[in-house]
Amino acid sequence: MIIAMKQHCSEEEIRGFAASLEQRGVTVHVSRGVNQTVLGLVGDSSGFESESLEAHHLVEKVVRVQEPFKRANRLFHPEDTRIVIAGPDGISRSIGEGTLTVIAGPCSVESREQITAIARDVKAAGAGFLRGGVFKPRTSPYAFQGMGCEGLDLLLAAKNETGLPVVSELMEIHQLEVFDEVDVIQIGARNMQNFNLLRELGRCGKPILLKRGLASTVTELLMAAEYIMAGGNERVILCERGIRTFETFSRNTMDIAAVPYLKQKSHLPVIVDPSHATGRACLVPAASKAAVAAGADGLIIEVHNDPENALSDGEQSLTPEIFASLMGEIRNYAGLEHKTL
Amino acid sequence: MIIAMKQHCSEEEIRGFAASLEQRGVTVHVSRGVNQTVLGLVGDSSGFESESLEAHHLVEKVVRVQEPFKRANRLFHPEDTRIVIAGPDGISRSIGEGTLTVIAGPCSVESREQITAIARDVKAAGAGFLRGGVFKPRTSPYAFQGMGCEGLDLLLAAKNETGLPVVSELMEIHQLEVFDEVDVIQIGARNMQNFNLLRELGRCGKPILLKRGLASTVTELLMAAEYIMAGGNERVILCERGIRTFETFSRNTMDIAAVPYLKQKSHLPVIVDPSHATGRACLVPAASKAAVAAGADGLIIEVHNDPENALSDGEQSLTPEIFASLMGEIRNYAGLEHKTL
Amino acid sequence: MIIAMKQHCSEEEIRGFAASLEQRGVTVHVSRGVNQTVLGLVGDSSGFESESLEAHHLVEKVVRVQEPFKRANRLFHPEDTRIVIAGPDGISRSIGEGTLTVIAGPCSVESREQITAIARDVKAAGAGFLRGGVFKPRTSPYAFQGMGCEGLDLLLAAKNETGLPVVSELMEIHQLEVFDEVDVIQIGARNMQNFNLLRELGRCGKPILLKRGLASTVTELLMAAEYIMAGGNERVILCERGIRTFETFSRNTMDIAAVPYLKQKSHLPVIVDPSHATGRACLVPAASKAAVAAGADGLIIEVHNDPENALSDGEQSLTPEIFASLMGEIRNYAGLEHKTL
Amino acid sequence: MIIAMKQHCSEEEIRGFAASLEQRGVTVHVSRGVNQTVLGLVGDSSGFESESLEAHHLVEKVVRVQEPFKRANRLFHPEDTRIVIAGPDGISRSIGEGTLTVIAGPCSVESREQITAIARDVKAAGAGFLRGGVFKPRTSPYAFQGMGCEGLDLLLAAKNETGLPVVSELMEIHQLEVFDEVDVIQIGARNMQNFNLLRELGRCGKPILLKRGLASTVTELLMAAEYIMAGGNERVILCERGIRTFETFSRNTMDIAAVPYLKQKSHLPVIVDPSHATGRACLVPAASKAAVAAGADGLIIEVHNDPENALSDGEQSLTPEIFASLMGEIRNYAGLEHKTL
Repeated sequence: MIIAMKQHCSEEEIRGFAASLEQRGVTVHVSRGVNQTVLGLVGDSSGFESESLEAHHLVEKVVRVQEPFKRANRLFHPEDTRIVIAGPDGISRSIGEGTLTVIAGPCSVESREQITAIARDVKAAGAGFLRGGVFKPRTSPYAFQGMGCEGLDLLLAAKNETGLPVVSELMEIHQLEVFDEVDVIQIGARNMQNFNLLRELGRCGKPILLKRGLASTVTELLMAAEYIMAGGNERVILCERGIRTFETFSRNTMDIAAVPYLKQKSHLPVIVDPSHATGRACLVPAASKAAVAAGADGLIIEVHNDPENALSDGEQSLTPEIFASLMGEIRNYAGLEHKTL
Repeated sequence: MIIAMKQHCSEEEIRGFAASLEQRGVTVHVSRGVNQTVLGLVGDSSGFESESLEAHHLVEKVVRVQEPFKRANRLFHPEDTRIVIAGPDGISRSIGEGTLTVIAGPCSVESREQITAIARDVKAAGAGFLRGGVFKPRTSPYAFQGMGCEGLDLLLAAKNETGLPVVSELMEIHQLEVFDEVDVIQIGARNMQNFNLLRELGRCGKPILLKRGLASTVTELLMAAEYIMAGGNERVILCERGIRTFETFSRNTMDIAAVPYLKQKSHLPVIVDPSHATGRACLVPAASKAAVAAGADGLIIEVHNDPENALSDGEQSLTPEIFASLMGEIRNYAGLEHKTL
Repeated sequence: MIIAMKQHCSEEEIRGFAASLEQRGVTVHVSRGVNQTVLGLVGDSSGFESESLEAHHLVEKVVRVQEPFKRANRLFHPEDTRIVIAGPDGISRSIGEGTLTVIAGPCSVESREQITAIARDVKAAGAGFLRGGVFKPRTSPYAFQGMGCEGLDLLLAAKNETGLPVVSELMEIHQLEVFDEVDVIQIGARNMQNFNLLRELGRCGKPILLKRGLASTVTELLMAAEYIMAGGNERVILCERGIRTFETFSRNTMDIAAVPYLKQKSHLPVIVDPSHATGRACLVPAASKAAVAAGADGLIIEVHNDPENALSDGEQSLTPEIFASLMGEIRNYAGLEHKTL
Repeated sequence: MIIAMKQHCSEEEIRGFAASLEQRGVTVHVSRGVNQTVLGLVGDSSGFESESLEAHHLVEKVVRVQEPFKRANRLFHPEDTRIVIAGPDGISRSIGEGTLTVIAGPCSVESREQITAIARDVKAAGAGFLRGGVFKPRTSPYAFQGMGCEGLDLLLAAKNETGLPVVSELMEIHQLEVFDEVDVIQIGARNMQNFNLLRELGRCGKPILLKRGLASTVTELLMAAEYIMAGGNERVILCERGIRTFETFSRNTMDIAAVPYLKQKSHLPVIVDPSHATGRACLVPAASKAAVAAGADGLIIEVHNDPENALSDGEQSLTPEIFASLMGEIRNYAGLEHKTL
């Protein structure tokens, strides 16, 4: 961290300020120029905030040279993280490093017939994981809120029938009790900065699929991962799912450049959700291929056997037929990126 | 709700589609034009989502005529809501309708001396409520996370000493147990769409100060209020606190037009947080006066007796002196808006 | 400007890099810390770009301490700029410093009757300037494009009849030939970064009302003013007119904090356009009062005698009656800010 | 266009309003429901604006069913447009339909050696067109503004030496006189809504590469193309180059989903500028591949032989070596999309 002091600062003021910083655990090196004195902080400055330091009347500007995240930082962990998950079929599946993971399934579990049929279809098409929501965050209190524990039973039945590990969204910490057989816990965009929840997830051993908040920067996403990792759980999967912008043709704006950026800054696997990012089924295939070409480690795609009558997100769900056709294309793109599906 | 059907739809298809809508509890009126058939839905369409309906292959466009919120809607509740809170000094304070409420205090409670001194200062300057955070949502797991229950005790001591009712942020539902003497529960921007939490707050009797999410529309803010109100708690105070945009000179972009818009659409009190909206102490006075001139029912302002050494948000905190001077100006503005401070 | 060098840089590399900077006209002071060397640039660094410098393989981070604008900078021109305009009635009108200027009139000049009637009405209500567009930037090539020179004649006739100086938008430089009697040239949001046009305006002697681009930062607005001022024309009026964000209830999001920020950073007058900023007549009064309370030096408000049949922007135009009533309120707010209307 | 009338409208009011619409050239069909009357407009409604109609006191909501653009609309022109350009080497090059076009070169022409060397390099790597700016839109009046006509001569010399047709940015209409030998005219993001310029370009016969404005919707981009096409010039190439959002790790946010959306809505070729969209050389390769995978008809990429000393945009320029390596990858991606490079 570099702190440019204001021009009028006296020698004594600078010494006093530097001392106050050193009391917080860093070493301060003072560089005096003709017009300006610059302080360089050596050591762990992750507890300092640029904004707070800039509130000080002696400070002109603060520049953070080091990223504020540590455990998620590729600098300190150059190798790609690979998360291994054992399915009920006895097959271990990896997420990250050399693998392209496709997670597919409906937005919400709606009935035994629905989830089982979709599970079979996505498995046949080559998906490695089954997704299905049972606790649903909905903008309106009057909209369908998910099937809850009953839906979870149906999802687990589909898991056992097909052998696909399952991904499902957790909305509050006490739901962890019933998520025992859920293989990957999804944390939705709205909970990305639910810090108490993140802290608790740091204590559970399960892989966490962490979705980027709809107005969160990628640095904030990495800091959210850091919350989980700081608690001891390093099995975090980052998920780009579109950000909110002024543009309205798509539900969100898919931030494709976030994929290579996150891969450069962090060792964690990065997957993309083209369904939420675009919000329109007709844009999902192109967005999926683009994500793979940009270096994503996986995709999470909404598939529904009857999108027109889906209880949620029908407008962005692919039919099993279109999904199967897309999987054929994705296989070729994964090959160009040296990844196996 | 109005649904424009695609041009090629047959008579039979339209009848079938209309029937499926009627099964969900609305009456459908079919209007046939030369090129296009339009359906008008009569009754409660708050459970319908435009996007889902547009997923149907027969549907061209959907227009919502009615707002999706009911209890928060001024249409069904034309009078301003007034929330009355009794302080420990025996004086009842109102929020809304004819009153300008000023809530002031530090971002975080840091010590007994700090909170007590600030409480006395803001009371002397004319503030009606004391704010102070004890559970703090922080972007970094390595930053100060608030004093917790110990801080709460200090806040309540300051309440009892000054007679000012207190506002403090709650981050998860089980903290409700220790919030018994907190007069107004603040829900932060990051929890505005923590739907499970909102639902629980609907069951508690306390006034809720609900902050707009940093990427939430005003309609989503009203829907979040609706979650709380649907549970039976109608004592909700809406708070504009700036939205995230491309502009970086201010921490957020204060959406001043949201104030008259919310007042027109809803009967709930609307307050403004100029401290978070601008993020810079030098912009807070102008932003505060603008909020009052735009019709806000109150302000929540960060005041710290030593901003340079504040443990959080020092850059946006006013000193007690500047706050007192601002209060003098605000009083005049409130007068022009026929509000008593 | 402060440049933090990468840690691995050799003494020789740093000397070479510093020398290359000095060749571009600045003095470089090298401060060596234990881990990091920092360069301080002294002199005029307005020709340097942070991004370009960060492209260099030896550079870690660049911080601009000085603002990139000079002529518009309050640092070098502490007194408020006051722009004096002589009306056809022989009365001189000031914009800036102690004055609140209200510019009112229709979006487009539509007919002699229309512009004359509105001119009389806004004058009677206390407006100091008449606005009226004759060359209109329209999103669709099929929409009404303004009356052109014919409209200009009608606008000037209204000017002469009422004595009000006029403000009208110029879209390309050759229109300057016919703008001889236009008192203030308006440059619209879409032309704020039409740099060739700005450069030409620097050579004309007329006051320029420069609107902020809908995705421009305030720094970019000041740089656009700098283009005009660098050419010799220092009579620039800055105009906040809302920025484009994700929110859709208003046409744009009015950035109220930009008013005090621009006033602090620059000596130029700052006015606000609540009509374009909100896009809805029902929000214009509150937004206007807020702008005055935030310290604006003026307002530019759309007024139409028949908004429902206006050829453009009817949805955001006030009727003369509502405008007159608003003027009564604005007078009181201006008084609180020690400004005369 | 569908207009939902307010509930209280009388029969007579509706008749009068419908008649006023018919006078503007459409046929109006009135559909009466129990609570609400809906008008359907048949015919060319491209001159109507939803916002203006909603200003009318009888109108509740307006829905546009038809897109507001016609000549750019795939509905009326189902086949892909293919733009053929003859190079100085006698070879005709196509843009659109089955071809992947790569335009490469420096941000600015800086010297004969620079542009010639880069031209040779990008040709050898397989680029089909050479880009090079000579009139540069720069945020600061103190930054390098391009070499002007002298630079144009150097660009044309490089064209003649290599046989590559050239693309260069035009900033105002009178520059057309010197653009005779420029093969494709680029219109920058800041001029996308310079309507007078667009109108003039409609009268010239040259292909126009039209960049999306940094805060423009894709519909506004198509309306800008419509301006050019309405004047008779149908040779328009659309260019996605990133939009401005809250995210700062990249210069802009590349809107990848705009590619399939534009291809679905329009028959015009769509190319992507990954250099401006990301603003960082290390993100350009991934963004380029993603664009091809998403269905883009081409790429425009900044290449510089000495990025660290480039006079502009060095931070986002690829070296010739990295560009050549990227071209190898792009060729494979183009193959998967059935496009020849």
